[in-house]
Amino acid sequence: MRNVKLIVEYDSTRFYGWQKQPNLITVQGELEKAIFKLIKEKVKLIGSGRTDKGVHARGQVVNFHTNATIHPSRYSFALNTKLPDDIFIRKSEEADVKFHSRYSATGKEYKYVIYNNELRSPILRNYSYHVEYGLDLQKMRRASEKFLGTHDFSAFMSTGSSIRDTVRTIHDINIIEKDKLIEISFLGNGFLYNMVRIMVGTLVEIGSNRRDIEDIPLIIKSKNRKKAGHTAPAQGLYLERVFYD
Amino acid sequence: MRNVKLIVEYDSTRFYGWQKQPNLITVQGELEKAIFKLIKEKVKLIGSGRTDKGVHARGQVVNFHTNATIHPSRYSFALNTKLPDDIFIRKSEEADVKFHSRYSATGKEYKYVIYNNELRSPILRNYSYHVEYGLDLQKMRRASEKFLGTHDFSAFMSTGSSIRDTVRTIHDINIIEKDKLIEISFLGNGFLYNMVRIMVGTLVEIGSNRRDIEDIPLIIKSKNRKKAGHTAPAQGLYLERVFYD
Repeated sequence: MRNVKLIVEYDSTRFYGWQKQPNLITVQGELEKAIFKLIKEKVKLIGSGRTDKGVHARGQVVNFHTNATIHPSRYSFALNTKLPDDIFIRKSEEADVKFHSRYSATGKEYKYVIYNNELRSPILRNYSYHVEYGLDLQKMRRASEKFLGTHDFSAFMSTGSSIRDTVRTIHDINIIEKDKLIEISFLGNGFLYNMVRIMVGTLVEIGSNRRDIEDIPLIIKSKNRKKAGHTAPAQGLYLERVFYD
Repeated sequence: MRNVKLIVEYDSTRFYGWQKQPNLITVQGELEKAIFKLIKEKVKLIGSGRTDKGVHARGQVVNFHTNATIHPSRYSFALNTKLPDDIFIRKSEEADVKFHSRYSATGKEYKYVIYNNELRSPILRNYSYHVEYGLDLQKMRRASEKFLGTHDFSAFMSTGSSIRDTVRTIHDINIIEKDKLIEISFLGNGFLYNMVRIMVGTLVEIGSNRRDIEDIPLIIKSKNRKKAGHTAPAQGLYLERVFYD
């Protein structure tokens, strides 16, 4: 029995998210189909986490157990010829038998892309959040520091999640600007459902002077989703990397 | 009679290029449909030039004559609500009665985007040319200088074009690199059919040491398409701006 680990990039535009669903095209569904074509075995893919419809990934991590004899390092090449062109395996390798893409993860990096311009851009529509009003980046940077460290982030979690432990640690948030694109990177030990998108929505409200920097500790303390900002749209979000020990 | 000038951005992924064709979705066709919905008049759109299937535009310029009473500056707002989300009018304004998007143009700027990485990227697949081998940017920059000035660029024109005067002037070529993206900007008084894509193909061959810098003057002199490099793919090309006096 081998445990195969894949690092996967995908453009989510055409998919109904990561998770397999009946009658809908999903990344997990397409990957399982390609693996079946290759090894004639129905494997159960474990992803590091679900990505919602519209959320892209450059470094989603996936693993599965199989009795097939093909060497784990060969899967990337063999699967890429069978996958649609919006999914690509960057790397495949053998993992320890106990490795689990989700439970073994010790951290994640997400990137969020804002297109900050008065006019919207058709070219960027599926790859960024269009914010048409001006944003004060210095203010957003100072605000982002308030998220750092270990907190109960319940207020930054969409309702409907059944997760119990809502304490997470954010190690770093970095905001850079190139031309009219603002890229916000989030590095943490894990993120709750929609947490990055709600943090971005809140930062955008601060950057446009609809909120104060000092709102953030108050929102965190409230543990109330309604106190936080709006959920920024899915298509600006990218799962960049998953970390393991 | 009013002459209306539009500046148009589009993501060409879904379209069969700019030019209207029966039974195919094109940018010109969609724009003419939206204008008809608005003013109930079949106008003849004049573009600054055709863009092929897959070629994007951030600054295509278009004009049309109409008897409609709506003020030219209002078209952008009114049309954007009727257009599909991969076309967007950045600006509309009244133009001189003699203004012609193609014949009045005095220059154009194109950008070409190369994704230079061993691995391909699903996210960038419709927006860049994937070159998997290493490129020597310094060599490409020195080579690009050989294109500058006024030359007969017949060797850099795809066959099938009926154009007679094949002399063009290139004012500037600029190559920048950000992460794994290489962006090449071309500024000239005009470009022949596929000229930018063949120049890029040739520069890529030089950057990967399959050709010498000194090949370029020899290719230009030959006036023979077969001497030049390959035609780089459409999806890396962007029409950025059209200049008028």
